[in-house]
Amino acid sequence: MPAFEPADPDFERRVRESFARQPFMTTLGAELVTVTPGRVEVVLPYQAGVTQQHGFFHGGAVGAIADSAGGYAAFTLFPAASTVLTVEYKINIMVPGNGEFLVAVGEVLRNGRTLTIARVDVFGVAGSKRTLCATSTQTLICLQNRSDSPA
Amino acid sequence: MPAFEPADPDFERRVRESFARQPFMTTLGAELVTVTPGRVEVVLPYQAGVTQQHGFFHGGAVGAIADSAGGYAAFTLFPAASTVLTVEYKINIMVPGNGEFLVAVGEVLRNGRTLTIARVDVFGVAGSKRTLCATSTQTLICLQNRSDSPA
Amino acid sequence: MPAFEPADPDFERRVRESFARQPFMTTLGAELVTVTPGRVEVVLPYQAGVTQQHGFFHGGAVGAIADSAGGYAAFTLFPAASTVLTVEYKINIMVPGNGEFLVAVGEVLRNGRTLTIARVDVFGVAGSKRTLCATSTQTLICLQNRSDSPA
Amino acid sequence: MPAFEPADPDFERRVRESFARQPFMTTLGAELVTVTPGRVEVVLPYQAGVTQQHGFFHGGAVGAIADSAGGYAAFTLFPAASTVLTVEYKINIMVPGNGEFLVAVGEVLRNGRTLTIARVDVFGVAGSKRTLCATSTQTLICLQNRSDSPA
Repeated sequence: MPAFEPADPDFERRVRESFARQPFMTTLGAELVTVTPGRVEVVLPYQAGVTQQHGFFHGGAVGAIADSAGGYAAFTLFPAASTVLTVEYKINIMVPGNGEFLVAVGEVLRNGRTLTIARVDVFGVAGSKRTLCATSTQTLICLQNRSDSPA
Repeated sequence: MPAFEPADPDFERRVRESFARQPFMTTLGAELVTVTPGRVEVVLPYQAGVTQQHGFFHGGAVGAIADSAGGYAAFTLFPAASTVLTVEYKINIMVPGNGEFLVAVGEVLRNGRTLTIARVDVFGVAGSKRTLCATSTQTLICLQNRSDSPA
Repeated sequence: MPAFEPADPDFERRVRESFARQPFMTTLGAELVTVTPGRVEVVLPYQAGVTQQHGFFHGGAVGAIADSAGGYAAFTLFPAASTVLTVEYKINIMVPGNGEFLVAVGEVLRNGRTLTIARVDVFGVAGSKRTLCATSTQTLICLQNRSDSPA
Repeated sequence: MPAFEPADPDFERRVRESFARQPFMTTLGAELVTVTPGRVEVVLPYQAGVTQQHGFFHGGAVGAIADSAGGYAAFTLFPAASTVLTVEYKINIMVPGNGEFLVAVGEVLRNGRTLTIARVDVFGVAGSKRTLCATSTQTLICLQNRSDSPA
């Protein structure tokens, strides 16, 4: 992965505050762990409320934390007065999500002025075992001079 | 869209029971509305718990009901003793999800023995206005002779 | 599909000239057929040079005409002084491409100022039979005040 | 990337013969370079016939060699009596393809009995400079007891 120089030195606070303003992440019980330039990790602990009919993590919940991890990986590199929207994402669920928690590792592949491309790998973690269960690629758009908070 | 003949005449009950076994749909507050051969509609009422930082429906919640609508559209056509898993999906979020509720309309494009392809359009509904806000294409796999319930 | 008002009344000539400037379309033997606001059809006649090891149309050739059909569907709606680039596309090949020719039907789903989303369905045509063999969704970017010709 | 044990010790010959049977790769002028278990590289030299209107590599040609690199990376791991079909692929073109040649590096992420998931990165190479210009994720299906040659 390339090394990135953040446009906003205060990027970590900005990203953490934005994540905290997403009620859906609270609904899921997802937590923002590491935040570095171009790279973010989001953890989703196992609980019945995020599962599907076989007791695995629901594919939609896997997609949701992948979406957040990629979006915030991009947002670390955006200027201070901006916000981020997801243009599109695609996700392959290679094995059903399983374990004590999932961790979605989002990394920026290309940081353009308007569009940023991020890759997210999602791992299921059970004890010391870490299994790649999904991979996603995302296109994010930077909206300049737009607040990241609700109007 | 092509007209489909379901392999299992009792498909509607099977689909509704499976949906009811997905705790994540309850967490979201999503409801399964119409269920016909090759076509399913899932509704997500607006509530703070499914929103992002601007107060719109979270892209991950949009993806989650799209995933369910496509998966269950496929499952209507599967044989009685089978289950469904999502192989992959991709979603374009064309406008931020907004309105009193979202409706995800999942339709099967191609029903193969192993793989089924579904398209899902997600609309935001505000009063009498219905806006296409996202579109998704999905690949689903049919696992024969596998229970749709947890072991 | 929504009805679109082209920004440039001379859109058809602009699209046809741009297509003619793509040597790769000549290499494939692809032809631009209908061009209307937000909708374009590209035909690929069968010939050995565009096939894979089983004698079907190569998935990469299917993807290439889909890419062109979606890109030019978007370009019909762009202003006169602009060009188009593909941000990303995804394609499901539902049945191997077969027949006397393929036709890729590209239609704009959403026409934004910066980004346009198009859907492309690719059909194999054999005699009077038309089979949906692939479907694609694409994200296109409009570069304003940039020539569509090489520098 | 995980290390893979090929099911067929004669995988390299099988892959190279299959590639040689794809007339479309000859049309493009694409060459199969390295072939190791779960990993394949395909090179596309620059020539006018694979370009778009600005003189860059056409997005459809980028997608075509990515499709080949991912499909053959999967095929290295398939049993002797089998063939491979592309179920779907998605590709982000991050910068327009440029340089003396493109190289598509396909790597298997997950090798299942029926489905295999591959990732492909495409680089533009100009002198000693190598630029990541596109990334693709693909779903491939293994058809057992089916010849890889035309009937």
